[in-house]
Parts: sequence; structure tokens; C-alpha cells
Amino acid sequence: MPELRKDPVVGRWVIISTDRSRRPTNFTPVRVEKTTSFCPFCPGQEDKTPPEVYACRQNGGGPNSTGWKVRVVPNKFPALQIEGDLNRKAEGIYDKMNGIGAHEVIIECPDHELELSQLPIDQMNLVLTAYRARMIDLARDKRFRYIQVFKNHGEAAGASLEHSHTQLVATPIVPRRILDELKGLDQHFEMKERCILCDIVDQEIMIGKRVVVDNPDYLAIEPFAPRFPFETWIVPKAHHASFEQSFQGNYFSLARIMKETLMRIHVTLSSPPYNFVIHTSPCNEPQGARQFHWHLEIMPKLTRVAGFEWGTGFYINPTPPEDAAAYLRDAAITEAEPAASTTTQT
Amino acid sequence: MPELRKDPVVGRWVIISTDRSRRPTNFTPVRVEKTTSFCPFCPGQEDKTPPEVYACRQNGGGPNSTGWKVRVVPNKFPALQIEGDLNRKAEGIYDKMNGIGAHEVIIECPDHELELSQLPIDQMNLVLTAYRARMIDLARDKRFRYIQVFKNHGEAAGASLEHSHTQLVATPIVPRRILDELKGLDQHFEMKERCILCDIVDQEIMIGKRVVVDNPDYLAIEPFAPRFPFETWIVPKAHHASFEQSFQGNYFSLARIMKETLMRIHVTLSSPPYNFVIHTSPCNEPQGARQFHWHLEIMPKLTRVAGFEWGTGFYINPTPPEDAAAYLRDAAITEAEPAASTTTQT
Repeated sequence: MPELRKDPVVGRWVIISTDRSRRPTNFTPVRVEKTTSFCPFCPGQEDKTPPEVYACRQNGGGPNSTGWKVRVVPNKFPALQIEGDLNRKAEGIYDKMNGIGAHEVIIECPDHELELSQLPIDQMNLVLTAYRARMIDLARDKRFRYIQVFKNHGEAAGASLEHSHTQLVATPIVPRRILDELKGLDQHFEMKERCILCDIVDQEIMIGKRVVVDNPDYLAIEPFAPRFPFETWIVPKAHHASFEQSFQGNYFSLARIMKETLMRIHVTLSSPPYNFVIHTSPCNEPQGARQFHWHLEIMPKLTRVAGFEWGTGFYINPTPPEDAAAYLRDAAITEAEPAASTTTQT
Repeated sequence: MPELRKDPVVGRWVIISTDRSRRPTNFTPVRVEKTTSFCPFCPGQEDKTPPEVYACRQNGGGPNSTGWKVRVVPNKFPALQIEGDLNRKAEGIYDKMNGIGAHEVIIECPDHELELSQLPIDQMNLVLTAYRARMIDLARDKRFRYIQVFKNHGEAAGASLEHSHTQLVATPIVPRRILDELKGLDQHFEMKERCILCDIVDQEIMIGKRVVVDNPDYLAIEPFAPRFPFETWIVPKAHHASFEQSFQGNYFSLARIMKETLMRIHVTLSSPPYNFVIHTSPCNEPQGARQFHWHLEIMPKLTRVAGFEWGTGFYINPTPPEDAAAYLRDAAITEAEPAASTTTQT
């Protein structure tokens, strides 16, 4: 059973994988499996993954058969375990609990060769709809306090399988980073009676120099104080607390801005490895929900995080966001469909 | 002039290098320069670095001549600039200031071929003494609030030059991570009227299973909730707030435990890349000084930080610290000198 342990100084929880402990000789760099080798995420290999928990199938086939457009399965090597109780305990001065949670993989399309940014808008919408379905379902489990959707694209960004996929981890605590954002949102609200992310959207539209894509419902920007070069956020213009309730689950407009933004990053930076994460309101914690303003953070993996950053939490970014935004706006992309409001799609 | 910018949501400062902005095509991976090529840190090349700010020379030679044992020079490509005022400013809803600070390189020995863990105890002591001298000198500058000493060893840990060196950055703000530690120390003190790191030292000595090296003055442990596999802390047993005042600047005992710990990591993990950072009390902030308990954190670079960690600040560690400590204790090392108290060295 994995264990959650809390650092007694800064209060940060970590997951210790006691079951699949890695020995010193076991840290050779992970390589992405190449196309030519076997892929458990390809159609026809449905029995090589744990049984699916969600799929979009339009041919009427049964679970774990072929014919799916998007498929969600439990991670074969989960960081957290779904069965059991939290069983919070002390170990002397320390705090720990069982590593309870869910760890799932969203297989974004049947085609092994396609990247997320190459998917048609319709397919991208199905992927986002799958995120939503899993978030809603997992939030029914009262043990879970947060659902983190994240993508690792490329070896340097931590991907170990080539077939395009997103992951999701449901955790029994609200992660520190989300608590920090909630605190910041609360402080601003207390002072101004407004949401700081709503203020950011307004100011960025007015100034324009950090905007990458502006569509009727969302803004893609380089944030004012980015940790990483070409770090890019996609923020709904209206105050929507949670991803899963946003626009009543209609993600066409989001699919459009995500595709265009990822394509601009792909072209500008020659197909870089990247991570993205969705920051949304915690679940099973109604008091923490409404003040959140969900958004997506894309982090191309271009530089190495080194001692200074690990020591201080203070990042050195060699590319001003204004320059990065200009490069991304100037990227010559061809496939992007015209922006349209979500409402015209329903 | 580099800029410090504050993220308006979580309050984290970042350094934006506006001067040496990196273009999209400019992110090819940094490679460590190989031994055969020119090295600006080798003896005889003193004019290839900015003029030294400190050196240990026992042959009576003048500044920037050969014959040094340890040499400290400003970084040729500093992340922060030494001249100027902070000039705190708003940019609409955002906060920024000039990127004022110091960025120096401590060249640990004249020999290009030696790693830090291979230095004799006497030489290691000179390196630690150089850290101290620079920390004391820079703390005289009232603009600085924190001095971060850190080491990047190996390409994957962010080193770009092979010749063994440490770096130091003086910042005009107390970094977030240090504020978090101060807050944790304060909270524990308020509840218990004791220092949490003193409590940790006591409990770890009593339990033993996470101890790597125990000498009369310091303890090297795998912390209870480490972010990374084989993360190792070296903590003074007594409550010493700042590195530079610790043991009145006598670092023989520290040199000994550092050398042994680094050798154990070197042998166990086949010479891994690693970072280390010294966490010490802020400077020019007397109220924040006394409750700190300085320590050194060593982080071997064995795994990749990916989307989940970036999204949540929540780390997945595949090696329980109890296992890591056992591997490190069992490492067959030969050179380590016997442990002795600092007091026997003076």
C-alpha cells in the first residue's frame, strides 16, 4: 500500500510508493517506447490494460472491445490505490495516511501516430468530455478532495508511452499548490471583492502584449510572472469555478483554443516536450469551490530546473513573457479553425 | 536589467532575464563542456573570469594570479545584477522590481578532474569557509534578504561546466521556500515551544532507520517525507540558526560528514547527477533569524518531475527513505576519515 507522508516543516504531502520500491540500480532513464514496439493503448490491445472505466464508442460495441474514440483505463502501475481507508496515523512527531486515490489514463484517440494538437476539434472535444465524465464520477467518492488532470508529452516531460494520452490522479488531500491558489484568491477577494483571475483576464485583454489567442470564451496568455519560458495559461473569461461545470460541459470553444495554442507552441518551439495541468476547484469541499477560477497551465520543457530553483522555489526564466507571446502569435499555423462562441455550437 | 515579478495568485517571485532573452531556437539542451576543451575555472585562466571577490591563496600571490586553493568570482552571466536600486513598481494589478542581487561561483579546487566528494577534508573545509566568507560579506549589503548557496553537479542537474563548483545567489526578497520553512518552524514553536528540526534530530537518532551518517555534531538522514528518491539532509544536532555562524565557522566536522555522505551517494547510485542547497536564516531580518535551524539538502537527480508534480506541488517518490538509508549505510566506501567532534579540531 502506498503511503502519504507529510513533511513536518513545510507541511507538504508526498506519496511514497512502498510497494514498487525502486532499488539504486533501477534508475536508468525512462525511454519512450517507439512506434515499432507493442503499444497497449492501440485498438485491438484492449485486454492489455486494466478494464476501462469510461469510453466513447459510437459503433455500439461492448466495453473493452475495439471501435472506441476515447478510452479511459486505470493506470496499470498506479501511484495511489483505490481500495482501503485513509487510516490517518502518527509516527512519533510525523503524520501519515494510506495512499488512497485513483490514477487513470485517458487515451486520447485510437491513432498511435497523432499528437493531441493534431486531433480534429470534434475529437479534442471528446477528450475534454472524457476528463469531465471522470472528474464527476470520481468526485462522488467522498474520500477524494482533488482531481488532478495532467499531460506529460515527450520523454523529457516524463512520458513513458508514445501513444497520446492524458492522466488523472484523485487525491485524498487538497494539494499544496491548489491551497496556495485558494489562499491568493481569498486574499484578493477580501481586499477587492473581486476574483484575481477575472482581473488578470481584463488587464491582459486591455494590454494585449501577453495574449496568444483570444476567443469569445477563453483567453490564452503568457502569464506576467511565468516560471518557465513559453509557459502558457488558458483561462475562461467568465468566472467558472470548476472545469467540469464550465459551459455546462460544452468544450468546443475550449477545444478550439487548446488546439490553436498547442499548434502555435508546436510550430514555434519545434515540437517541444511539454506538460499541462488543469487547475480546478477542490471536490467535496463546498466552501472552497466557488471562489476558484479554473484554468489550464501549459509548460513546455525547455530548460532544466536546478539547485537554485529547488532551494528557493524561485524560478529564473530566460524569456520574457511578452517576447514569448509575440513569437507564438507570429507562428505560421494553417489548420486552426475560426474562433466561434460556445453558444453557436450548442 | 533583469526583473523580479510576482505571480499575483500565489505570490511567488520569478526572475525574468530581460537582457539575455532566449529566442525559441535557442533552447538546445545544455551540454557539460568536456575536459579536453578550454576551462575558465582552471589555474592559468584567471583572466577569463570576472575579477575574483575571494580566494584562498597560501603562496602569497596577488589577486587573480595562480596558486589559489579556492577561488570565488562573479558569474559571467549573472541571473541578477549587482548595481542599482530595487525600484519597486506596479504594472497595473501586478508587482515588480529590478532584478538586483549577486550571483557568484565558488571554484572548489584547482584540479579539473576532482569532484567535491573526492576532495580531502582540509580542502572541503576551505570550500565551506569560502561559502561563509561570501555570505558574511554579502549580508553587509542591506538590499539583500537571502543568500542561497547551491550546487548543480552533472548535466542532468543543470551544470554547464565540468570543473567542480558551487554557486551562490543573493536575492532582495526572502524566497518562498524559506518563508514556508520559517512559518512551519514558527507554528511548531508556538504549539510546543521547541524547534521542529531539533525534534526531528532527536527522533531520528532514537529510531535510527533513516540515519545515513551520525557524527558528534551533525546527522545525515533521509527525511521522513522526501520529494525525491535518496534525498538526504545534513542537519546540525544543536540549534544553529545560520550556516555562517555555526560552530564559529569551524567546518571540519561538517566537511567530514559531507564527504562521507556524498561518497555514499556516489557509490550507491553510480555517480549520479545531484543538486544540493543550504537552507539558512534570512539576512538583514533579525526577527526571522533565531528560530531557523540551518541544514543542507542533497537531491540526487534520478527521476523526472512531470505534470502531476508541477500541477500539485505533490511529489511521488518511488523509494521509501528507510530503504534508501539502508542502501547508503551499506555502501562500501574506503576513504572516509573517522568521525571526530569539531571541538577536537580547534
